[in-house]
Amino acid sequence: MKRNIKGIVAEMTIEEKAGLCSGLDFWNTKGIERLGIPSIMMTDGPHGLRKQRASADHLGLFDSVPATCFPSAAGLATSWDRELIRKVGVALGEECQAEEVGVLLGPGANIKRSPLCGRNFEYFSEDPYLSSEMAAAHIQGVQSQGVGTSLKHFAANNQEHRRMSTNAIVDERTLREIYLASFEGAVKQGEPWTVMCAYNKLNDEFCAENERLLTDILKEEWGHEGFVVSDWGAVNERVDGLRAGLELEMPSTGGSGDQKIVNAVRSGQLSEESLNAAVERLLHVIFKAVDHKKQDASYDAEEHHRLAREVARESMVLLKNENNILPLAKEGRIAVVGALANQPRYQGGGSSHIKPTKLDNIMEELTKSAGSQAVITYAKGYDLDSDDSNSVLLEEAAHVAKEADVVVVFAGLPERYESEGFDRQHLRIPDNQIKVIEAVAAVQGRVIVVLSNGAPIEMSWLSNVNGVLEAYLGGQAMGGAIADLLFGDANPCGKLAETFPVQLSDNPSYLYFPGNGDTVTYNEGIYVGYRYYDTKMLRPLFPFGHGLSYTSFEYSDLTVDQTHVKDSDEILVSVKVKNGGTLAGKEVVQLYVRDVVSHISRPDKELKGFGKISLEPGEEKQVTFTLSKRAFAYYHVEFQDWVVDTGDFEVLIGKSSADIALKETVHVTSSVVIQPRFTRNSTVGDVMEHPELAPVIMELVQHSPFASPADNGEESSSSEMMAAFLKYLPLRGLAAFSGGALTEEMLDKAVLKLNKK
Amino acid sequence: MKRNIKGIVAEMTIEEKAGLCSGLDFWNTKGIERLGIPSIMMTDGPHGLRKQRASADHLGLFDSVPATCFPSAAGLATSWDRELIRKVGVALGEECQAEEVGVLLGPGANIKRSPLCGRNFEYFSEDPYLSSEMAAAHIQGVQSQGVGTSLKHFAANNQEHRRMSTNAIVDERTLREIYLASFEGAVKQGEPWTVMCAYNKLNDEFCAENERLLTDILKEEWGHEGFVVSDWGAVNERVDGLRAGLELEMPSTGGSGDQKIVNAVRSGQLSEESLNAAVERLLHVIFKAVDHKKQDASYDAEEHHRLAREVARESMVLLKNENNILPLAKEGRIAVVGALANQPRYQGGGSSHIKPTKLDNIMEELTKSAGSQAVITYAKGYDLDSDDSNSVLLEEAAHVAKEADVVVVFAGLPERYESEGFDRQHLRIPDNQIKVIEAVAAVQGRVIVVLSNGAPIEMSWLSNVNGVLEAYLGGQAMGGAIADLLFGDANPCGKLAETFPVQLSDNPSYLYFPGNGDTVTYNEGIYVGYRYYDTKMLRPLFPFGHGLSYTSFEYSDLTVDQTHVKDSDEILVSVKVKNGGTLAGKEVVQLYVRDVVSHISRPDKELKGFGKISLEPGEEKQVTFTLSKRAFAYYHVEFQDWVVDTGDFEVLIGKSSADIALKETVHVTSSVVIQPRFTRNSTVGDVMEHPELAPVIMELVQHSPFASPADNGEESSSSEMMAAFLKYLPLRGLAAFSGGALTEEMLDKAVLKLNKK
Repeated sequence: MKRNIKGIVAEMTIEEKAGLCSGLDFWNTKGIERLGIPSIMMTDGPHGLRKQRASADHLGLFDSVPATCFPSAAGLATSWDRELIRKVGVALGEECQAEEVGVLLGPGANIKRSPLCGRNFEYFSEDPYLSSEMAAAHIQGVQSQGVGTSLKHFAANNQEHRRMSTNAIVDERTLREIYLASFEGAVKQGEPWTVMCAYNKLNDEFCAENERLLTDILKEEWGHEGFVVSDWGAVNERVDGLRAGLELEMPSTGGSGDQKIVNAVRSGQLSEESLNAAVERLLHVIFKAVDHKKQDASYDAEEHHRLAREVARESMVLLKNENNILPLAKEGRIAVVGALANQPRYQGGGSSHIKPTKLDNIMEELTKSAGSQAVITYAKGYDLDSDDSNSVLLEEAAHVAKEADVVVVFAGLPERYESEGFDRQHLRIPDNQIKVIEAVAAVQGRVIVVLSNGAPIEMSWLSNVNGVLEAYLGGQAMGGAIADLLFGDANPCGKLAETFPVQLSDNPSYLYFPGNGDTVTYNEGIYVGYRYYDTKMLRPLFPFGHGLSYTSFEYSDLTVDQTHVKDSDEILVSVKVKNGGTLAGKEVVQLYVRDVVSHISRPDKELKGFGKISLEPGEEKQVTFTLSKRAFAYYHVEFQDWVVDTGDFEVLIGKSSADIALKETVHVTSSVVIQPRFTRNSTVGDVMEHPELAPVIMELVQHSPFASPADNGEESSSSEMMAAFLKYLPLRGLAAFSGGALTEEMLDKAVLKLNKK
Repeated sequence: MKRNIKGIVAEMTIEEKAGLCSGLDFWNTKGIERLGIPSIMMTDGPHGLRKQRASADHLGLFDSVPATCFPSAAGLATSWDRELIRKVGVALGEECQAEEVGVLLGPGANIKRSPLCGRNFEYFSEDPYLSSEMAAAHIQGVQSQGVGTSLKHFAANNQEHRRMSTNAIVDERTLREIYLASFEGAVKQGEPWTVMCAYNKLNDEFCAENERLLTDILKEEWGHEGFVVSDWGAVNERVDGLRAGLELEMPSTGGSGDQKIVNAVRSGQLSEESLNAAVERLLHVIFKAVDHKKQDASYDAEEHHRLAREVARESMVLLKNENNILPLAKEGRIAVVGALANQPRYQGGGSSHIKPTKLDNIMEELTKSAGSQAVITYAKGYDLDSDDSNSVLLEEAAHVAKEADVVVVFAGLPERYESEGFDRQHLRIPDNQIKVIEAVAAVQGRVIVVLSNGAPIEMSWLSNVNGVLEAYLGGQAMGGAIADLLFGDANPCGKLAETFPVQLSDNPSYLYFPGNGDTVTYNEGIYVGYRYYDTKMLRPLFPFGHGLSYTSFEYSDLTVDQTHVKDSDEILVSVKVKNGGTLAGKEVVQLYVRDVVSHISRPDKELKGFGKISLEPGEEKQVTFTLSKRAFAYYHVEFQDWVVDTGDFEVLIGKSSADIALKETVHVTSSVVIQPRFTRNSTVGDVMEHPELAPVIMELVQHSPFASPADNGEESSSSEMMAAFLKYLPLRGLAAFSGGALTEEMLDKAVLKLNKK
């Protein structure tokens, strides 16, 4: 429906306009009946809808209506499957329509800086490209149903420790290449109706009042047309926030924020135009939500549960599979050990915690899949609410394990270890679980561990077991998906979207996380995740992109359509992948780019493309990628734009970041000429990089002692040292060493000449 | 001689005063005859005097008068022997007196941030305490002879790459705890007559015009009373430099710098008082030098050579000694392989390169020490001027090795690899040397490698050899010292003053060295050297403080005279060390301190004391250390001072940083109370750390929904999440979630109350 938004705004009083800039209550915007402005509802839950019942408490953290619980983002991302994420988005959108929700608060595109961050399970990846691709697909899916999303938490909200007061100090290049890049792709491709600003400060300013972030970058550079909503309680100074580009304050502050806006407009501190602009953005989204509202919408809960199972199956990562211990034969005695098999951990704690429509019983699913030829036994092994071992449970576990042909241990992080609100303190699973794994492995040579956790763990026990299936927080159909994979009814095809380090201290942010007091400086810079491990040559436990299959894939025929291109050209890359095994399977083909020689620090390689394909046994398919400028560029801080360093780049095709199968070299020429600006402090070497300027330098050098250095021939290092000395000498240094022969005036003239050429 | 310096200054014209602020020529200050102001000479060379002959070239880099070449600083520091360094200083002072040199330009107290720095051989350590202790002893020794020193290069001059234009960005805490600390101790204890400012910029300002560095910190905080001299050619803007505290510009600029000063005083841009103050500082040192000048001084070159041998012997580090392959028996066939045995690399290239009074011939020294029962053969093995292998030399080396009972391979870095002026590109020794080691080890089971190098190298070949003696750049008596140690006429007692990493990429500065363009950001912060390896739990090839002996030492009876102290108290620590072997030997006993729990990031441990003792077989001695506040403190940036975090500290006694023998815990209470200043953005948790303030918070909370959170009991993580939420909630957040019940006015009043208590 076409509406004259400007006309409506013109009819509004200042009080009405200010009022629209904050919530009616915890979840709804304000309606204005006389102008036909409706109220819309927002609810939490990127991987499932968390709509509070009316009777719930004010903080809105508990009781909600049932909704399908999909795997949390950490698990969704391991599918590396844009189409699948889009389907999840569609399902979420359907449930929102059924529950009359206008905007779903998600997805989260924050980068996993440290595996300790308590909220990592809600985020996609340590890699901005993968994260932005996943977020964009999620947004597209939800919004295809006429329901808005809120891309969050913008930006640099990478820890729960002091999350509402901490000040993230992030250098510009790191922001652009890592933390903002994850949002940039999601905003540009996904066009989320709204963006949620984060609690923390970024470079000394609260995100909620960070004009550079909310207006200059988000709205102007990236072209975001929706509104920005505060994370709940994130507003510091309301008027500063509005001026900076924060349109909607949530939750309601009972009118106090509105009053501040009214006062500011009346006193001239805030222009009415900027308030109008905010209201226009709000109205655009509100009306869009209302116009897309479907009457009497409903959804098929069973169908969504099946989708949840499919998604979980496609996301779980087979980390280890020694001697092909998996898939399990559907026969013999199979022991299942671990309380997590009975009390599954399938979602994370906090604002994303939902009430599932149904919940798979893992034991039942295993029993169903195993069929009648197998006998499944169970031992609890450990308590979930304590880290202390229970010797009775331990003995029982060992006993059950010993009697069986194979043991599947369910281990992972209990809820008390991992939640929104606080960070983890270490990467271990509880001691009592480790003891169970060790006790079981001591009596049983065939042990598989199935993990439920939202983020990486250390595995001191890894060499004791034969197989590890990372199930992440797999949602309400996790049980069925695990059964599908363990018994080979499905073939694992997830790949890690984050690095698993050998030990916490290997993580790049380790020395600088969670910061000192309210300051956290991102000293590791652009070296986040595999960018660090690969560049530092530090072997992780499991690398980014790693994931095994029950079949094998052969890569061949990497071709690049052009090997010499300008950065404005597009390059078409293709590679053939063949299923060399006897089972159908899916493979995530990864494309990384390496700058062979760079004049600035760059990571060893960066993910610039990926595709997931399905292959029958013996089948071969071609996978193609298109690379454009951004695939080769870095963010040039002085130039304030993405720049390619002219030179050779390797296009790497890998099964993981550590397993590169094929590579080709392309030469990319930059279309940007950054004109050097010479000063008296430019070095001789810098000027000499421009051969046409050599005469000017030679004129200067002739007045200096460098024109005829004494040759004593004694030391081979002397001439090299002198060459280096001259190379690094500022032009003023030629004068300094001339004993007065080269005057300041001559120097100034020469610099003028250099800049004229 | 007492002089009225102020009186002399009063008689000087502005031109004379300005003139005194720069050199007469390359090495001398200006004299003013009519006022009886003499000229004094400065020369390069911290480990030996480099006085140019009059006929030498202007740049002063080559031909110089003979002088004793002691081990370069990298080698001196490995002695960990203050008294020995002081003796070297005395000898240097004697040589200066004999050559009529007033100020010796050294020592260098820059921290070894990266092993790649081409000038590391001139610096002492990666640890500021060890570096400052060594520098202070050096200064005290030289100055005891009435000759000045120039502590250099102040500050953060940690690379040769773009050394004259690079801008080192170093955060305040890192500067204070690492880079400045090394100078601070040397200035306070050593009282160098002069300090030399570095070429580079530090935090955006050239060190040569960095007032904070040269005046606020050096002169005012640390009480330096001498003058600051520019590194040769380091002056950018002369007047800015003078104003900032740079008294002397070197070398002569033919009067152009002087003229700028005159103009600035005349135009009022520079006060005459500040010029006077500079001239007073210059005159104090000039007259001191002249007053201490010894007539007809001379020195005993043979005696100094013997000292050089003693020092070299005490500095070399026995890195590996598998199955006690060393010391060598003085019998049988001993093969010596490697061109470095014939063309020894005993000093570094650049301004510290001197002409030795004599030079040990390594082969001769080995033959002499081995005696008549041994037969020494030699094969060149590789060329020094190329990295390419020579198959004839290689075969010859293998042949000689096979025929011998044991092989000593001389390997290391050729001069072209390592010099002032440029940084290394990698940490490997040349490929042709590696090939020789491998070829020799392939045919001979008993291989020892003797290394000549100024900084760490990677040792891919380490497991192929049985022994490694690190000789560093051992000075002119290196040959004799090596012979003493290889044949057991002396017992190795040096310990590494720097970490040897397994691979270059393990180094903490790896990702941030040498920076991008003219900016190098010290992102690794305080985590330099072992502070990084220990905290990151990254195993080095050889840890800081490591060094083997031919005997063994037993540590016992660690005592701490008080276990509960205030930070203003001194703690006496003592430990007993016994020589448990059959040979006399020396041991470097190291004391590290660990802050057990700290609220800010701190290294795993830090060196806070060391002592070197000599023990006969079976002998036991007590070593004592005094610890005061600084041993427990970190630099508190906001408080602008050193602060101790009240709590438990471990006092660790180690044979190296990785080999801690004993530890004790002391509880230190801070004498500083840093009054918290609460704002509306203070968190509830921060306020609650002060129990007396709880009522104020409770009053606020009662208006918020947190007063009675709904209890649904469903999820164990929920209550933990809520507790964390509240803990990290800013006070304004209580208002934000109150729906208006808690007003801004109530909040402001509460904050006032909090700050009043």
